[in-house]
Amino acid sequence: MIRYPNGVEGSPLPKKKKPTQILNAANRGMGFEADINDANAFYNEKEIALITKRPTPINIVKVDYSHGARITDAYFEHQSTTDYNGIYRGRYLDFEAKSTRSKTSFPLGNISIHQIQHLKNVIKQNGIAFFLIHFSLVDEAYLLDARFVIDCFEHGVKKSITLETIKKEGCCIRQGFHPRLYYLEAVDTVYFK
Amino acid sequence: MIRYPNGVEGSPLPKKKKPTQILNAANRGMGFEADINDANAFYNEKEIALITKRPTPINIVKVDYSHGARITDAYFEHQSTTDYNGIYRGRYLDFEAKSTRSKTSFPLGNISIHQIQHLKNVIKQNGIAFFLIHFSLVDEAYLLDARFVIDCFEHGVKKSITLETIKKEGCCIRQGFHPRLYYLEAVDTVYFK
Repeated sequence: MIRYPNGVEGSPLPKKKKPTQILNAANRGMGFEADINDANAFYNEKEIALITKRPTPINIVKVDYSHGARITDAYFEHQSTTDYNGIYRGRYLDFEAKSTRSKTSFPLGNISIHQIQHLKNVIKQNGIAFFLIHFSLVDEAYLLDARFVIDCFEHGVKKSITLETIKKEGCCIRQGFHPRLYYLEAVDTVYFK
Repeated sequence: MIRYPNGVEGSPLPKKKKPTQILNAANRGMGFEADINDANAFYNEKEIALITKRPTPINIVKVDYSHGARITDAYFEHQSTTDYNGIYRGRYLDFEAKSTRSKTSFPLGNISIHQIQHLKNVIKQNGIAFFLIHFSLVDEAYLLDARFVIDCFEHGVKKSITLETIKKEGCCIRQGFHPRLYYLEAVDTVYFK
């Protein structure tokens, strides 16, 4: 018999009703990664694609083994690759997802040189490489080919890409309820047509 | 001018000569993952393939932000996918590496059901899926197609695959100095011939 914290045997505590979450541009931006993961789960379930998120690399300094393995000292490492990769329509896919609170442009400052190098390597191997860029305050997401971003990163005069340019060069991602992002439609448009 | 610990300016301390490491079967087994990473670095550098290791997934409980971000409480999560994936000859590649100290068979017990499911999904998407199995005490490594391992895992009577069977069904991996493992040769033999 399981003893629940309120002392009543076998009867679980009534679950507190969660307050209805209001979806607005601000908190949608926070969940861009969650939306991509949701889309990936959807695509995997429907056997459309298999795309996974790479875990955040962590450097472990100390592990306490007295009660199982508990990490007591560690720190975050920089991701030397991208966040996502996988397979779609027989092709290797590799991309980085970024969200910005700017309403007018995507700053290149939060892309690391390692990620640029990694995406260049993907292109060399004939893989599909792109960025998913989310403008959280206007709640719009775009697919932008990595080649274009790499060119801006390496040869661009400005340290950002304007939303105007992204609208022209990229592909807008349709949003829905489940999945939240139909980003593979944008992949179809850009790479399979 | 740099002051070195011994007080002599501009003159670095003589490097201590490292004791010659004796490579034997036992310590080679410990470094199977390191050998694969070394091979991947080699293949990437030569632009032959782009294969990366997924970081170990860690569930973070507490982060101390008083001196940068320091993780003070976390624990290991089970890898729900495999350790490695990437692109080779335009194809998506996905594999799990396992090392065993058994001299006669590879125990299936350390493969998780999630990994089997993941590899089945890779095959459904027409990706290349396999295991790299290392017998550390005899220092032999084999590539074994995931289909065969999945079949043993799901329908096999025994809870292990004998080295004899692996020799017959798999492909032996040539070892060298740099890289230590020419495992893409085995991929060529099994999947590109």
